[in-house]
Parts: sequence; C-alpha cells; structure tokens
Amino acid sequence: MSAEGAENVIFVGKKSVMNYVLAVLLQFDVGNKTVILRARGKAISKAVDVAQIVKRRLLSNKVEITSCKIDTEDVGEPPRKVSTIEIVLESKE
Amino acid sequence: MSAEGAENVIFVGKKSVMNYVLAVLLQFDVGNKTVILRARGKAISKAVDVAQIVKRRLLSNKVEITSCKIDTEDVGEPPRKVSTIEIVLESKE
Repeated sequence: MSAEGAENVIFVGKKSVMNYVLAVLLQFDVGNKTVILRARGKAISKAVDVAQIVKRRLLSNKVEITSCKIDTEDVGEPPRKVSTIEIVLESKE
Repeated sequence: MSAEGAENVIFVGKKSVMNYVLAVLLQFDVGNKTVILRARGKAISKAVDVAQIVKRRLLSNKVEITSCKIDTEDVGEPPRKVSTIEIVLESKE
C-alpha cells in the first residue's frame, strides 16, 4: 500500500498547493480508495495544507485522514537529517 | 491534557528550532509525562523537526510520538483557513 513509487503516493515538493490537490483528486477519480501524501522538510506544511483542502473544501465528508506519521530520513552526501511526513487519505465511499 | 494554555502545551512559532527543543526538554524535566507541540501554517515543518530532534537525538528511546493530528483553524479578520498540527510526545519512563 505504501510501496515506493506506487501510483497512489504523491510526493509534495516545490509546485503549488493546488497542483497537489489536483493530483490527489485524480487518484481518487481513477478509483483509488487510498492516497498517500509524502513530504520532507519545509514541504511538510504544504502537504498538511493539501490534505486539509481535499478534506474540507473539495471532498468534505467523503475523505478521511486515517493516518499521519512523522519520521526522519538521511538526505544527501554527507547525510543530513530531514524530517518527513506521511499522510494517508481514505475515501469513505 | 490538551487544554488551552496548559503548561505542557508548546506553541511552535517564529523562534529557532532549538528554542522549542529546549522548552520540550524543560517540560519533561519538571516531571511532565506528556508534552504537546502545536503549530500553524509554515511553522508546521518546524514542529515536526522539534519532535524528531527530541525523539532521535536527545531523548532517544525515552520519548515516543503517540499522536499526530492535523486540522484547520480560522485565523484573522476576515477569517482565513490555516492548517494546524498537534504532536503528542510521551515519556516512556
């Protein structure tokens, strides 16, 4: 379900919030019941915004945030610790 | 436990990450078993960093992240939607 590179995993990075909101909606639209948002570092706030916009404004009462995990990853050379977040959105339909 | 203004609730804002890390350590030091980190908007990434630094680097194996909730709040006049996070750290000792 949360395998790397899976279609229903969306990596939130430098694009605009609405870009990722659209990506989430498309994933639900093609029939996925679960969409996973992942982000690192400063993009974490953006991932939370994306999840909240999908949940509150666009698919209110149809989507639930079932999990929110935070962790640390080593990034770059020399490795440096970067915080990560994984938010799981599930369709209730 | 998560009452507004309680001593063990730390609002993460514009100060440096280490400032909030210290605040968390102080709360555990005075005997609190639970410390709650709260943040809004862009400070969300910082709150995650604080939680991860406390957990991984300083109190490894002594502190666990038992809950991570995201939500939306109305802020300002006229009100505008802002994402929020609440991270609960619990001492295992």
